[in-house]
Amino acid sequence: MAICSAHTTTSLHSPCTTTVSNSGFRQKHVIFFTSSNRRSGGGRRHGGTRTFHVSCSVDKPVVIGLAADSGCGKSTFMRRLTSVFGGAAEPPKGGNPDSNTLISDTTTVICLDDYHSLDRTGRKEKGVTALDPRANNFDLMYEQVKAIKEGQAVEKPIYNHVTGLLDPPELITPPKIFVIEGLHPMFDERVRDLLDFSIYLDISDEVKFAWKIQRDMAERGHSLESIKASIEARKPDFDAYIDPQKQYADAVIEVLPTQLIPDDNEGKVLRVKLIMKEGVKHFNPVYLFDEGSSITWVPCGRKLTCSYPGIKFAYGPDTYFGNEVSVLEMDGQFDRLDELIYVESHLSNLSTKFYGEVTQQMLKHADFPGSNNGTGLFQTMIGLKIRDLYEQIVAERAGVPAEAAKV
Amino acid sequence: MAICSAHTTTSLHSPCTTTVSNSGFRQKHVIFFTSSNRRSGGGRRHGGTRTFHVSCSVDKPVVIGLAADSGCGKSTFMRRLTSVFGGAAEPPKGGNPDSNTLISDTTTVICLDDYHSLDRTGRKEKGVTALDPRANNFDLMYEQVKAIKEGQAVEKPIYNHVTGLLDPPELITPPKIFVIEGLHPMFDERVRDLLDFSIYLDISDEVKFAWKIQRDMAERGHSLESIKASIEARKPDFDAYIDPQKQYADAVIEVLPTQLIPDDNEGKVLRVKLIMKEGVKHFNPVYLFDEGSSITWVPCGRKLTCSYPGIKFAYGPDTYFGNEVSVLEMDGQFDRLDELIYVESHLSNLSTKFYGEVTQQMLKHADFPGSNNGTGLFQTMIGLKIRDLYEQIVAERAGVPAEAAKV
Repeated sequence: MAICSAHTTTSLHSPCTTTVSNSGFRQKHVIFFTSSNRRSGGGRRHGGTRTFHVSCSVDKPVVIGLAADSGCGKSTFMRRLTSVFGGAAEPPKGGNPDSNTLISDTTTVICLDDYHSLDRTGRKEKGVTALDPRANNFDLMYEQVKAIKEGQAVEKPIYNHVTGLLDPPELITPPKIFVIEGLHPMFDERVRDLLDFSIYLDISDEVKFAWKIQRDMAERGHSLESIKASIEARKPDFDAYIDPQKQYADAVIEVLPTQLIPDDNEGKVLRVKLIMKEGVKHFNPVYLFDEGSSITWVPCGRKLTCSYPGIKFAYGPDTYFGNEVSVLEMDGQFDRLDELIYVESHLSNLSTKFYGEVTQQMLKHADFPGSNNGTGLFQTMIGLKIRDLYEQIVAERAGVPAEAAKV
Repeated sequence: MAICSAHTTTSLHSPCTTTVSNSGFRQKHVIFFTSSNRRSGGGRRHGGTRTFHVSCSVDKPVVIGLAADSGCGKSTFMRRLTSVFGGAAEPPKGGNPDSNTLISDTTTVICLDDYHSLDRTGRKEKGVTALDPRANNFDLMYEQVKAIKEGQAVEKPIYNHVTGLLDPPELITPPKIFVIEGLHPMFDERVRDLLDFSIYLDISDEVKFAWKIQRDMAERGHSLESIKASIEARKPDFDAYIDPQKQYADAVIEVLPTQLIPDDNEGKVLRVKLIMKEGVKHFNPVYLFDEGSSITWVPCGRKLTCSYPGIKFAYGPDTYFGNEVSVLEMDGQFDRLDELIYVESHLSNLSTKFYGEVTQQMLKHADFPGSNNGTGLFQTMIGLKIRDLYEQIVAERAGVPAEAAKV
């Protein structure tokens, strides 16, 4: 038995009160009330969108934050996450074709670029990058994420990456799992406090550089100098506003050059660390062999043969920005299915629903970048952890055992 | 149903033939026939003892060889081994008080020094060390070990370590497990081929030196120079005749200085390797976490706290003198019971009969040297492996499942 009540806010044109009795678990009753008081800010400033929908739901969204630099695989990560819940993620139907939002049965992923307060020209005029908090509307971000978390639909602005302009808003209704991904999900303390779980994708400078060379030089014909210059130009703001967020993350995926090939700088073989904060509610870190001890593991040996340079895992406790964490590391890449299932079978606390689910997920998206290395593996593992966290929260709210609340 | 027949050899004064029908498993029928044709070799040369006993038994001894330098813990190892089978090992009752033999219910351990063909004075005169094959009677060693293995009692000579003389022989009857320990159990190919399992205790020069300093300098008042000189004097023969035997061993226990304390040369904290040959019948190497892969493990962490310098394990496949081996390594030492049981619980293929048996054995002999480090741990583990090997061989001979043949 769940009771829903409509929410009102001072920005609504008229009050709304309603009570719905709902005995069917997982059914959702939404009441819309729209108020669009759009303020024009010289055609570019667009922070004034204040569209609220009053709704009620027995399962208010679980809110996940994913922080990373652009071009660092956030969208791949999101596709892996939504896939864990089944069903593909697609842009809102019939909406803006340049929408940054992805919606699946259970998950809505929004891009925080949509909260840019300055469009491309505006940023240029003011001499600020998209990384700069002054180019972003954190008040609106906070209000809307909070509204979604409370079960209310919102009219979220759209930043058009093609035109560099701010497009008319789109309707976002509360999903089961609401993911905010972008440059600043943990920058503003108010937004940060709304997150049930947070992830930071930390790509080392060496790997970022190798990736950019591969993409911008090989595929787009940029010069090495211009790539270096663009990275250098971006670095001060990145270090000032993006990077510090990782201290708040519940999980950090750190991507580093391999240590298996001496002096490798190709960035093709990667060493990836999954840094998992201890003591986070509803999140039990994955471990290798023996929880809380320090391990290195080269699975390639008598039972499993691997091609050069092989695969090496490490696991152990550590501290990260003063927090106790468990770190799982994978260096190298999978060549064959048996390697992947062998590794999966030796990891514990995976929150899978059946033996081999990690491998199944990885194979399902074998064409995604990173499917043969630690980025894909750890993204998949975090996806499963988020499903588990969601199910625990829903079960807790409903006062039923987690088993009954499975997605 | 087992049939026993008496054995005769050409050296017997009269032929002996008998057939005993024995339906009771593990009962033993022994027929003695003694022929002592002692040749006096100037009071010192004593290789002519040719005393044979004809016997028959359904469970002929399993023969184990243990090689190591003197003062390297062979006797401790033997006490651990006999303890695994229950019952204490004692010198033969009513015999020579300087006998080197240890007898328990299941095990007889003889010292191969008893096959010295030259006594102390004789060696001095000829200018050979006890390590030199010329000071040892391998023909007699072979004949007597072979006889015991065939179920026949022998009159084995005794080398008196106190007087440095060869004493009158003692009667050795075939036990369940016959252990030959000393400098040369794997030196002579004929003797080597009689061994069902062989072990080499390999103490590194650094540790040997540290131990000798502790014993000879601290306890016996020798000078550092004299200790160095005695080690140097011994080294050429050791390297020529003792050390090469390790290539034949089924298991090698290698004792090295710790790597946990930088530049440690005290020899108190040890790094010990257990090198286990693959493909040895009735012997399945112990492994850590994942058989055949390469692992390092620092169990001291969240669940287990250890004092400085902690404990570190390593495990993995390797080659040793061209043979495929599995190597288990322990660096550091146990401070408390919970550390030991924690480590035991993470090792596999231990051949224990109940959970915690390794720990129980270690605790039982907590006063033995090495009980808090890898020497004691691996000696205990090898003891359990020998029990397992014995039970498998007995079961195989009797054509019954191993379970029915437990000691």
